[in-house]
Amino acid sequence: MLMVDIIRKKRDGGVLSREETEFFINGYVKGEIPDYQVSALMMAIYFRGMNDEETHDLTRAMLNSGEKLDLSAVKGFKVDKHSTGGVGDKTSLVLTPMVASCGVPVAKMSGRGLGHTGGTIDKLESFKGFSTSITNEQFIHNVNTIGIALMGQTKDLAPADKLLYALRDVTATVDNMSLIASSIMSKKLAASADGIVLDVKSGSGAFMKNDNDAFELANKMVAIGKNAGVKVMAVVSDMDQPLGRAVGNAIEVREAIDTLNGKGPEDLYELCLTLGSYMLKFAGAASTVDEARSSLEDAISSGGALDKLGDLIEGQGGNRDDVCHPENLPVASKQRDLCAKEDGFVSAIKSEDVGIASLLLGGGRRSKEDVIDLSVGIYLNRKVGEQVKKGDVIATLYGNDDKKIDEAYKRLAGAYEFAANSVPAKKLIKGIVE
Amino acid sequence: MLMVDIIRKKRDGGVLSREETEFFINGYVKGEIPDYQVSALMMAIYFRGMNDEETHDLTRAMLNSGEKLDLSAVKGFKVDKHSTGGVGDKTSLVLTPMVASCGVPVAKMSGRGLGHTGGTIDKLESFKGFSTSITNEQFIHNVNTIGIALMGQTKDLAPADKLLYALRDVTATVDNMSLIASSIMSKKLAASADGIVLDVKSGSGAFMKNDNDAFELANKMVAIGKNAGVKVMAVVSDMDQPLGRAVGNAIEVREAIDTLNGKGPEDLYELCLTLGSYMLKFAGAASTVDEARSSLEDAISSGGALDKLGDLIEGQGGNRDDVCHPENLPVASKQRDLCAKEDGFVSAIKSEDVGIASLLLGGGRRSKEDVIDLSVGIYLNRKVGEQVKKGDVIATLYGNDDKKIDEAYKRLAGAYEFAANSVPAKKLIKGIVE
Repeated sequence: MLMVDIIRKKRDGGVLSREETEFFINGYVKGEIPDYQVSALMMAIYFRGMNDEETHDLTRAMLNSGEKLDLSAVKGFKVDKHSTGGVGDKTSLVLTPMVASCGVPVAKMSGRGLGHTGGTIDKLESFKGFSTSITNEQFIHNVNTIGIALMGQTKDLAPADKLLYALRDVTATVDNMSLIASSIMSKKLAASADGIVLDVKSGSGAFMKNDNDAFELANKMVAIGKNAGVKVMAVVSDMDQPLGRAVGNAIEVREAIDTLNGKGPEDLYELCLTLGSYMLKFAGAASTVDEARSSLEDAISSGGALDKLGDLIEGQGGNRDDVCHPENLPVASKQRDLCAKEDGFVSAIKSEDVGIASLLLGGGRRSKEDVIDLSVGIYLNRKVGEQVKKGDVIATLYGNDDKKIDEAYKRLAGAYEFAANSVPAKKLIKGIVE
Repeated sequence: MLMVDIIRKKRDGGVLSREETEFFINGYVKGEIPDYQVSALMMAIYFRGMNDEETHDLTRAMLNSGEKLDLSAVKGFKVDKHSTGGVGDKTSLVLTPMVASCGVPVAKMSGRGLGHTGGTIDKLESFKGFSTSITNEQFIHNVNTIGIALMGQTKDLAPADKLLYALRDVTATVDNMSLIASSIMSKKLAASADGIVLDVKSGSGAFMKNDNDAFELANKMVAIGKNAGVKVMAVVSDMDQPLGRAVGNAIEVREAIDTLNGKGPEDLYELCLTLGSYMLKFAGAASTVDEARSSLEDAISSGGALDKLGDLIEGQGGNRDDVCHPENLPVASKQRDLCAKEDGFVSAIKSEDVGIASLLLGGGRRSKEDVIDLSVGIYLNRKVGEQVKKGDVIATLYGNDDKKIDEAYKRLAGAYEFAANSVPAKKLIKGIVE
């Protein structure tokens, strides 16, 4: 088999066989097939696409290119959740303790993230002492005893995907649905969950800028998951404005705690209930999504979910009291309000600009080496559809450096759009794919 | 400027600016832009194409990526000829002395070629002592004194093209007309001729398999030449059967000598007259192509052209007497005839199979390191449209090894097709592009 023949076949619109896909993935990981042939193939795939079978073959080949996380020692049906990423997305912080408190084990791998804010791990490090650098044994022990544990991504999962993604990033071959779907799913499948719920964001602050693309990606990922024999579903949710009202790190943790106390923003709570219902149903902890939803609501009202967050923090080196005293989490030294210049209604909040404002305050990473300031962030007092009077505080910036606050203020001011007349509120959940 | 943005622009159907083209070619030659980005761009170009201006910019950038041949010391208007390559193509061996004997200086760089037979240089090495490894000074001295010299390709011309071609070859990105045209023309322009005639072959034994592709390539190359300010034209000629009757190395030289003696095959002679007419007209040695054609015919009938071949051979270390005694050139020790099994007419000769038969006899190179056997080859007694009677010798194989002759015989037998009724002869010249 020659790589140049595989490239030519795809270039000419052919369908790659499983053997051809395995040949190029295995050869690439072993260093036997050079980058320049793989990038040419990626560009041919960009133009010609891949059918479902090719996409499944590629996912499987990447999944098999390295080790899988061994969760065989974890008792019960394991569910995982993945979000394609958005601004203000603190869903995992709320969802995982909710689900775990309903008796479904959560053994989650998370990333640090490169972007507007930190990833789930960064945010949780707002709890002093909390660490995800735990051994596999500790991880499994925690899941089996307290029902929840979080671990940083190890290097060995789906190494082909890491190589391929890095190459695609510098050769303008990222934007192909099959490649995106197989990249995400190979990593998720390598984390060995029995069930996966996917949160596909759609809108200005997301990777998928419109609903068509978001549904296409959701459908492809669900098809891959089914083909691999796991229970899987996807929610397509709005990212035309940030999720919830807090954007940053510690500030997002505080909003997550509010939500676990039953006092969080509606959109965040609704998303957690929707995703969580499927997680419970997949795990057999409820026979219908409605029944699952009731259990999750009970976990909030009883305080069980908040208590489970305490278990998680304590289990990995933090102080569980901080969960009840979120004022202990880092807070920036300065704040500045963004005020309305006239009466009206918020018609749009460009998520990406809010995210960049958070980054400018120091809340995110531009490169892997950057250190995140966990204390900074933004609170959105007004969201789309809400009325404002001249002089109202629309949003507040929290920072430690006046110059950075100046820059972030300008960016945030540009993110808001207003209308004279009332504007309908945004619908959060655009659809379910299962 | 970022290479990934250039790739994305072309991927999305954009037109690259001159600056962008120069950026990637110069960066690639300097080793600052990696193979994997260039191959992704080549694949994007394969799908999106390049317009005329982009093609001219690319040619110029490749031309300027290295040194040009310095022919400023050569007196007079210099014309060059290029063929896209075919089976039995000994045109340069006949054409260059014809043109030189009419007073137009020929300063030609030639290659050894990788294929069914050797290149022009290999063929000329059938003359004992003849060498193209001469100094630049000797080359220019010969052109200025005897009007003709031939030199091997130096390493420095259009290095970007060499890099790019090698990469395209292994990434299935060769087959794009703009890339093919700019590759050929950048090398030709670097050889510093004032006028260029192009012989674009069309048919089973050529790179361009059909007339549409051949004319498209001819048009693109002519446009590039004009844009670069040289006089240029192209002949599109048939390669559905070999040119002339001899295929090999020394055997092709003998056919070339026959042609210079006025006793060569019609198709070869006609092609030389056509190409030569434009070379003379470009150089101002004739005011019309008809006048030029008469001069060339005179050069044959007077013996001047043959004499000029003698000058060339003698000028580069060979014995001019061999030109009058072609029996001195290498001849294989064994021969085998291919005979007709029944009466009929030759309806087709698959050129590529004839070429492979020559290669199997040892007359060509599979890899750069192969040594060519100059003595072997094939003589086609019958060509398309000619009648055969049962038992007639259709073709003769000349070889030095029975096993190789066996293999070549099978291949050659499969190359011939017959019809019961008369078949029209092939038209050699399909059109002129100027």
